[in-house]
Amino acid sequence: MTGRILALTGLLMVLPLIVSLIYSEYHSAQSFGMTIIITIAVGAAIYFPSRSKGEKDRLLFTREGLMIVGIAWLAVSLIGAVPFVIDGCIPSFADAFFETASGFSTTGATILSGERIEAMTHGMLFWRSFTHWIGGMGVLVFIMALMPSDEKNGRSMHIMKAEMPGPIVGKLVPRVKDTAKVLYLLYIVLTLVETILLWAGDMNFFESIVHALGTAGTGGFGTLGDSIGSFSPYTQWVITAFMVIFAINFNLYYFIVIGRIKDALSSRELWLFLLILTVAAGAMAVNIYPIYNSISESIRHAAFQTASLASTTGYGTADINAWPTFSKIIMIALMFIGGCAGSTAGGLKLSRVMLMFKSCKRNLTKTFYPRSVNVVRLDGKKVDDETTDGVGIYFTLYAIIFAIIVLLLSYEPFDFEMIFTSVLSCLNNIGPCFSTKLASPQFADYSTLSKVILGLAMLLGRLELYPMLFVFTPRRFEPTRTEKKTSK
Amino acid sequence: MTGRILALTGLLMVLPLIVSLIYSEYHSAQSFGMTIIITIAVGAAIYFPSRSKGEKDRLLFTREGLMIVGIAWLAVSLIGAVPFVIDGCIPSFADAFFETASGFSTTGATILSGERIEAMTHGMLFWRSFTHWIGGMGVLVFIMALMPSDEKNGRSMHIMKAEMPGPIVGKLVPRVKDTAKVLYLLYIVLTLVETILLWAGDMNFFESIVHALGTAGTGGFGTLGDSIGSFSPYTQWVITAFMVIFAINFNLYYFIVIGRIKDALSSRELWLFLLILTVAAGAMAVNIYPIYNSISESIRHAAFQTASLASTTGYGTADINAWPTFSKIIMIALMFIGGCAGSTAGGLKLSRVMLMFKSCKRNLTKTFYPRSVNVVRLDGKKVDDETTDGVGIYFTLYAIIFAIIVLLLSYEPFDFEMIFTSVLSCLNNIGPCFSTKLASPQFADYSTLSKVILGLAMLLGRLELYPMLFVFTPRRFEPTRTEKKTSK
Repeated sequence: MTGRILALTGLLMVLPLIVSLIYSEYHSAQSFGMTIIITIAVGAAIYFPSRSKGEKDRLLFTREGLMIVGIAWLAVSLIGAVPFVIDGCIPSFADAFFETASGFSTTGATILSGERIEAMTHGMLFWRSFTHWIGGMGVLVFIMALMPSDEKNGRSMHIMKAEMPGPIVGKLVPRVKDTAKVLYLLYIVLTLVETILLWAGDMNFFESIVHALGTAGTGGFGTLGDSIGSFSPYTQWVITAFMVIFAINFNLYYFIVIGRIKDALSSRELWLFLLILTVAAGAMAVNIYPIYNSISESIRHAAFQTASLASTTGYGTADINAWPTFSKIIMIALMFIGGCAGSTAGGLKLSRVMLMFKSCKRNLTKTFYPRSVNVVRLDGKKVDDETTDGVGIYFTLYAIIFAIIVLLLSYEPFDFEMIFTSVLSCLNNIGPCFSTKLASPQFADYSTLSKVILGLAMLLGRLELYPMLFVFTPRRFEPTRTEKKTSK
Repeated sequence: MTGRILALTGLLMVLPLIVSLIYSEYHSAQSFGMTIIITIAVGAAIYFPSRSKGEKDRLLFTREGLMIVGIAWLAVSLIGAVPFVIDGCIPSFADAFFETASGFSTTGATILSGERIEAMTHGMLFWRSFTHWIGGMGVLVFIMALMPSDEKNGRSMHIMKAEMPGPIVGKLVPRVKDTAKVLYLLYIVLTLVETILLWAGDMNFFESIVHALGTAGTGGFGTLGDSIGSFSPYTQWVITAFMVIFAINFNLYYFIVIGRIKDALSSRELWLFLLILTVAAGAMAVNIYPIYNSISESIRHAAFQTASLASTTGYGTADINAWPTFSKIIMIALMFIGGCAGSTAGGLKLSRVMLMFKSCKRNLTKTFYPRSVNVVRLDGKKVDDETTDGVGIYFTLYAIIFAIIVLLLSYEPFDFEMIFTSVLSCLNNIGPCFSTKLASPQFADYSTLSKVILGLAMLLGRLELYPMLFVFTPRRFEPTRTEKKTSK
């Protein structure tokens, strides 16, 4: 399996290779070419020998799904970094790993300065944003869509569970493989629509594609140093709209496509999400008005940032670090919540936050009225106790990991706000970070060790903790029958 | 019941009244005298009519315990503020409420500047610290110890459960009333020992008492503007030691007293707590060495701050806001964890944090090995699933409340670090707050509304959320039989 993943990752680089050739960037083309050959060779070397080992049966366990996803994402982030290093646009491998992890995890945090981004070749810029696009929907979901259909459904489901964002994963159509196909079809169509709308504006064709890929994956990589700042208001509004669109549960679009519009519009999460965005954007627009002295501008910047951070994309049109604390705190709140479940957005996911509130309400009612009967519902469906309690534990786990990473970075010479928001930004796959001390906080300032830690944090966050934790957990291959454990 | 609480709070003020008289501060004495008369009058007015209403039976429910405790603490904080206002040392009632809530909740955050503290009369200074001492062990536990012994045990237990800190409350001796007595006896003895040790140093008798009361309640109010800074190293070390002592579960001392030393020393929480303190103090000592250029001084300050923040006392010997981010983040971590369960310290409580880790470990094992059997143990005793899941929900609730208060304060013109640490400081009953923007962050800078919010946050934190939430929950008197609720 790992072997196949390697091979397929290699194939993913054929696109940037072509792009490089189109723009006759032979050096970049070369770096992609070399990487492709290496990965496919290594992939094949791993794949064929292990083929006969009857993996297929063992792959039916959840933990095998977790294992594959965890390893796959690590591998992909490491391989994806190679072209940058060979090309020389990111000489340090740690930096390249950070950049690629940031890409696949759809974080969009970069260690590159504005000039260095603008100095990159088309091929490299395309690859950066393409990693967002692949990572957004899920590397393996993508591979599954390409898989020969003899794959076991059970395995695919476990993989999908481990890779798709959000607390609950629903199969749209009976066979997971087809669900993956449907999702990717919607994904491609929406990306194309955005590309055309952007192209109609002041972006050239290449910029349109790169930014469409960046928005679709809710990533945040672009082509310019000041992100979207120097593009026209029209372009900024188009991106604002699509950042919101890609942060909404894809199942709703599927429902709309198959004509079940009522089901799509009955989603509580959808309406709450739109409500939160409106309120946040409104409040921030008023708060930043003194900076811009223009209603339209304040509203545009506020709306863009709200969409950008809530969707965990991380594009920027203004120097948000200079905004007042009120706006900063609202933005931090949006960064924690993130987008809707089943979208390409990161964060805790709104539906999980809703469940957190409901569990707390339930818990309070139980404490106050011990004999009362409580049922937690989401969109009318009853949520079983395991899920509601699970949400509490998941959040606790999230908070503990958050705290540990902050402690690991505490030796950095930055202020608390910088470190806190950096961890938040990477763990929730957003991009920017704030600082009171520094005028322009950037990840380039972090030490190599911190960059690796933050890179892993991105993957940890993108896969919602479990797969990556599993990869780094000892005794993972302990056979099932002796699975008796007692935590002392 | 409320009536009786009012009356007894009135009686509590007899001590500061006496102190004022000793120092012939007749104006302060007057303010206490007036408050006593008013409260006792009002108390009696409420108490006698309602006496016959057969309250006693209804009081056996948990929610009645919660209700009483919630109301009691609100009432006590409001009444306790009156003398400050009458005396004129804190003219604004909002400020006085903040100060008294800070006192009873053992937070120790003050809205008074150094000069204004030093300008206070002995009577007022004594009252400030006395509120710490009462609040530390619990206002109602104190009243219970004084209660006529015909009180129903069930009621007392519910009150104790609602008021004593920590996830688990154990009865030391069969009858709760006696447990309360035992605890207070230990409490008084330890306080006296500290008073004598401090008196032996460079503190005068009055200062010794005030600071002993402040340490015993893990509060943080003192007599000088620079807290403990201007006292001798000996005094600082004594206070360091007692801050740790009062942050350890009191049951352990009871075990030692009755000769069950083995049980006392078998507590995992105890050893982990001491380990954390040692590591934190060591790390910080190294980190702040450049500031003081003296090993002994760095160690003393680091040890003092570690003890002060982990025990949630909040005394200070140095300008910790000027310390590097590394130390700040360690301190913030200590502030979150807090002291041991069953002590006068605030915070999440170490044993709860331990349970959080165990639940997460259990949850991970369950995810990775679905068929595995998991038992969470604390000190060898099995912890039932309800408690382990409950810990997750409790923490979620804590985090949600934390976030809401931060959002409520976001309009303040401070930096994120200031607001974040202020909320942490008040919710966990600690005292100090940090800021990158301001050289000397202080609660006096907050608006009246924010002061009231933070004051309530202190009570919320001191009573571990439930009682205060219950007071502000609608339909709380809904009779038992119709207790069917469904959270939509």
